[in-house]
Amino acid sequence: MKIMKLNSFGENMYDLIKKLYPICRSITGDGVRDTLKIISTDVPIKVKEVPSGTEVFDWVVPKEWNIKNAYIENSKGEKIVDFKNNNLHVVNYSVPVRKTVSLKELKEHLFSLPDHPDWVPYRTTYYDKNWGFCLSHSQLLNLKDEQYTVVIDSSLEKGSLSYGELLIKGTLTEEVLISTHTCHPSMCNDNLSGIAVATYLAKYLNQTENRYSYRFLFIPGTIGSIIWLALNEKKAKNIKHGLVLTGVGDSGSITYKRTRRGNAEIDRVTEYVLKNSEDNYSVIDFYPFGYDERQYCSPGFNLPVGTFMRSPHGKYPEYHTSADNLKFIRPEKLDDSLQKIKSVINILEENKTFVNLNPKCEPQLGKRGIYGAMNAVGEEKAKLQMAILWVLNLSDGSNSLLDIAEKSNCGFDLIKDAITILLKNSLLKEI
Amino acid sequence: MKIMKLNSFGENMYDLIKKLYPICRSITGDGVRDTLKIISTDVPIKVKEVPSGTEVFDWVVPKEWNIKNAYIENSKGEKIVDFKNNNLHVVNYSVPVRKTVSLKELKEHLFSLPDHPDWVPYRTTYYDKNWGFCLSHSQLLNLKDEQYTVVIDSSLEKGSLSYGELLIKGTLTEEVLISTHTCHPSMCNDNLSGIAVATYLAKYLNQTENRYSYRFLFIPGTIGSIIWLALNEKKAKNIKHGLVLTGVGDSGSITYKRTRRGNAEIDRVTEYVLKNSEDNYSVIDFYPFGYDERQYCSPGFNLPVGTFMRSPHGKYPEYHTSADNLKFIRPEKLDDSLQKIKSVINILEENKTFVNLNPKCEPQLGKRGIYGAMNAVGEEKAKLQMAILWVLNLSDGSNSLLDIAEKSNCGFDLIKDAITILLKNSLLKEI
Amino acid sequence: MKIMKLNSFGENMYDLIKKLYPICRSITGDGVRDTLKIISTDVPIKVKEVPSGTEVFDWVVPKEWNIKNAYIENSKGEKIVDFKNNNLHVVNYSVPVRKTVSLKELKEHLFSLPDHPDWVPYRTTYYDKNWGFCLSHSQLLNLKDEQYTVVIDSSLEKGSLSYGELLIKGTLTEEVLISTHTCHPSMCNDNLSGIAVATYLAKYLNQTENRYSYRFLFIPGTIGSIIWLALNEKKAKNIKHGLVLTGVGDSGSITYKRTRRGNAEIDRVTEYVLKNSEDNYSVIDFYPFGYDERQYCSPGFNLPVGTFMRSPHGKYPEYHTSADNLKFIRPEKLDDSLQKIKSVINILEENKTFVNLNPKCEPQLGKRGIYGAMNAVGEEKAKLQMAILWVLNLSDGSNSLLDIAEKSNCGFDLIKDAITILLKNSLLKEI
Repeated sequence: MKIMKLNSFGENMYDLIKKLYPICRSITGDGVRDTLKIISTDVPIKVKEVPSGTEVFDWVVPKEWNIKNAYIENSKGEKIVDFKNNNLHVVNYSVPVRKTVSLKELKEHLFSLPDHPDWVPYRTTYYDKNWGFCLSHSQLLNLKDEQYTVVIDSSLEKGSLSYGELLIKGTLTEEVLISTHTCHPSMCNDNLSGIAVATYLAKYLNQTENRYSYRFLFIPGTIGSIIWLALNEKKAKNIKHGLVLTGVGDSGSITYKRTRRGNAEIDRVTEYVLKNSEDNYSVIDFYPFGYDERQYCSPGFNLPVGTFMRSPHGKYPEYHTSADNLKFIRPEKLDDSLQKIKSVINILEENKTFVNLNPKCEPQLGKRGIYGAMNAVGEEKAKLQMAILWVLNLSDGSNSLLDIAEKSNCGFDLIKDAITILLKNSLLKEI
Repeated sequence: MKIMKLNSFGENMYDLIKKLYPICRSITGDGVRDTLKIISTDVPIKVKEVPSGTEVFDWVVPKEWNIKNAYIENSKGEKIVDFKNNNLHVVNYSVPVRKTVSLKELKEHLFSLPDHPDWVPYRTTYYDKNWGFCLSHSQLLNLKDEQYTVVIDSSLEKGSLSYGELLIKGTLTEEVLISTHTCHPSMCNDNLSGIAVATYLAKYLNQTENRYSYRFLFIPGTIGSIIWLALNEKKAKNIKHGLVLTGVGDSGSITYKRTRRGNAEIDRVTEYVLKNSEDNYSVIDFYPFGYDERQYCSPGFNLPVGTFMRSPHGKYPEYHTSADNLKFIRPEKLDDSLQKIKSVINILEENKTFVNLNPKCEPQLGKRGIYGAMNAVGEEKAKLQMAILWVLNLSDGSNSLLDIAEKSNCGFDLIKDAITILLKNSLLKEI
Repeated sequence: MKIMKLNSFGENMYDLIKKLYPICRSITGDGVRDTLKIISTDVPIKVKEVPSGTEVFDWVVPKEWNIKNAYIENSKGEKIVDFKNNNLHVVNYSVPVRKTVSLKELKEHLFSLPDHPDWVPYRTTYYDKNWGFCLSHSQLLNLKDEQYTVVIDSSLEKGSLSYGELLIKGTLTEEVLISTHTCHPSMCNDNLSGIAVATYLAKYLNQTENRYSYRFLFIPGTIGSIIWLALNEKKAKNIKHGLVLTGVGDSGSITYKRTRRGNAEIDRVTEYVLKNSEDNYSVIDFYPFGYDERQYCSPGFNLPVGTFMRSPHGKYPEYHTSADNLKFIRPEKLDDSLQKIKSVINILEENKTFVNLNPKCEPQLGKRGIYGAMNAVGEEKAKLQMAILWVLNLSDGSNSLLDIAEKSNCGFDLIKDAITILLKNSLLKEI
């Protein structure tokens, strides 16, 4: 199985991430719009706006949140914590606040990481009206017992939630869904890496002839997939395979989390690609936590959507902290993720089922010039001949190309070559 | 999974066994009636009498056997073997005899255990008209070549076979069967332990509100279950789960013998309880030998009835000998057996199937106050939240509470708690 | 399970092979006819002739090939390679040739084995009009740069293809197919061993009363099975079990190659026999290469035909060389192959399904004199009683005799004994 080693796009993806890194994103607001605008310079995504208050299943699209500034000033008038230095300093979705508070009151709104005293944590308060600041634990320990001025110059008002969508039409109306979340502020692996790999995958598929249609969703986590599913219930039925991309730029090996079905074609194909790469990898079963696979795989949809990541969320200390920065991800890992996903898609595209048109006994391959005595034709050709025999024997309508590759141990590419030859000789027909 | 540690009833069960130990039981006769009478002081069993000669499938209820006395006297007039010392001395169901015999003739009617020269074996001759004595091998070796008077003052006459039955009605007509045999004379593990544990289980279930109905059978082995099945063929269809109890007081660990089906709910539940206890245990497949499971699991019934025991019958040297006495069983082991069976029943009672009423995407748990950010709610609550997510995700109608507990690895009790919360929030419905 | 140790026929089979060894066989021609004639002195096979040019599925029966002589003469007139010494020297199906050639031109038609310099390889050119000689590599190296006269006195003309067929009718029209190839010239393991074992198996089955009908095919490889299947499509549907026999005389242990179905009755029975013998063996999955199983197991037929061999073809150096001679095979190995195949057939014959006529509870075996207390009847009888209980319990119509033997671990023969007893007591019925 060829892991497609085309040009590396690692540096390009890394550059895109550098551009997106400073922006303060959230589940709504201008940060998301700015992000989608940058993505659209690479691929022609459509930006959708869903008004606050729209009901989507059990949920309601929240008010739009925007922020201009936020800081904590000590009694000397020094800004000791400043949103402009790092947008993780403000708890995402904090309501506006401007007041003077004692250290005691302030502390009720402060979050830090005692185990990593130099890192700033990432916190949100989407559905609880509240405010807060995140800071390093060393900063927190240095706070004196004095009065502090806290300012959060944010707005939480009726507006809309923005997401990006791109449908690349193929021969089939059946779709492959690629979904990645856009709601995280300045963190690179979670999830600028997902955004960058999805963007470059879309760029690639936009240039090739595809059998499947490909739908890309750049959406805020949870509420975004709920919105899309609620507004597109019928279209969701076209999704035959899908991947949620997240955390695909760190140094860890690939982790594939299976769909809820556990043995969907996307599960088998992804595992085949990983098994046949020379790299370490893990495959884990579905569990109802994580990112948007939670919604795609809810029992009312149960879509065959797996999750493609490197180190799993929550399993590395830098996760959801300021340490998930530009140093934490690597161009070659972004590229490796992209290449492997391309290989998965390559197999999905080719994984058709054929039927042997001469099923009673073997056809006489010799008279067609595609068979010679095994000990006379050389090792390479002998392998191809075995692949031809396997394809003929297993093409009874119940085995896809991947099934044959797995049962014969011949390798997907060799089986594909055998099929090409047999099609040319009218011995096979796609069903 | 909680092993229910209620009050210990070990001593009470041991006391009951002490009361029952001296009685000479058999498959019919007054010994059984006396036994059932003592049991009825604890639980309101009904005593049924089935007349000798009644045809039950391929069998006929035998004549009733009663015994007053039995001994062997040597030429000096000394009683060298006396039924009054130990009722195992007489072969159970021996026909009446009173005669003088030579040592040679006597020996044809004597049974001993050369490997355990101080123990008296237990022998029966239910369906062969014969007589005999059991004695220790050292006694046997000491017999001189003289004339002996043998007396068995027994009767074998038309009468009836007695068994005890108790139906504790629950909400459902579906039943759980608890069956234990009452035909063994003075032996404690086999089967006064089964009788005592069944009695105290019945006492417990008689006081609780139950979903299932519970049928207790105190019956002679083999013929008893054949009688019940023959006379209650229709009712047998209500049996959804069942356990045969035998040998549940010795020091060995629990052995569970699966039903003939091999994967019945009672099998899965019992294995779940044993796996989640901290004790050793064995689970073995069904085989057509043992106690009344042979009849319940005959192919014409194939009831989901497993066998709950400690050391399996025939696998410990004391089995079916005088060494299976009051010292061989222990109150705390009786209690451990009872507790584990209660845990099994507890799960059977709770193992319902629910359906997620909001199956499309996750419901918004936050607005119902039953969800907070995982890293903010504390470990205990985070586990409960995961259990809630598992229940929502798997409640598609195909998974019972036990299925969810096993697939999620969350533990039965936590899943139960999650279900309680979701029911309260109208997010779930029992089906 | 008894491996049937009847009289050994090892020496008889070896003698038959010695008679057949010198004959130059091919896929057509008088060598095959001579071979079939010798076989018919042992078993009444019918010799079928299929005219050249007959269309059989995608194939056409080739012209008939016969050969009288073939040699290479050096410039001194010495025959340095002579067909009369070893018929492997001529490439099988070589067209007639008579000319003088340079060493260079000659070499384009010579085949040798550099790794085994003293052995002569076996080569064919059935469907390519060509000619050639096979010789030892040491001979090849000694050839001087001079002119050589090559003579192949062969004919390739319209005629017919010959094969042998024998149908031994049993009670059932369902058939067991035994197929072996007859096209190889002077090589013993491949495939005079297959021919000899098939012959002696036919001889045996011709003398016994059989439930199944047995069809023996002595056919040229590939084209032979294609012909038979093309001309007997309807009859092929009667084949319920089958074995291709090849390479059954060498010192290696048995290799069984499963049918394409993988779990056919013949697969289970053969594996049972091998597992219960005390010898090493291998079982391998079907793959679409080898001998006539390729055709029987083509997807349009998918017959339950496995392949019974010792060392697998292509896996021993002597394969398809002059070293596969009379020293390479051993009478006791031929006999071992025959005995094991007889055991397979013995189980196929006996592997019926019975139904318990008294399925509700156990029948009272004691009153029929076929049951006593387990500890009183002796070990041998206790085992038989357990087998009886297993048969009664599992005979619900879904378990064959082999199923019961496997599930109970009782052994096929003991289960058979139990069935005999139960049939005699009218407790069982064949279905």
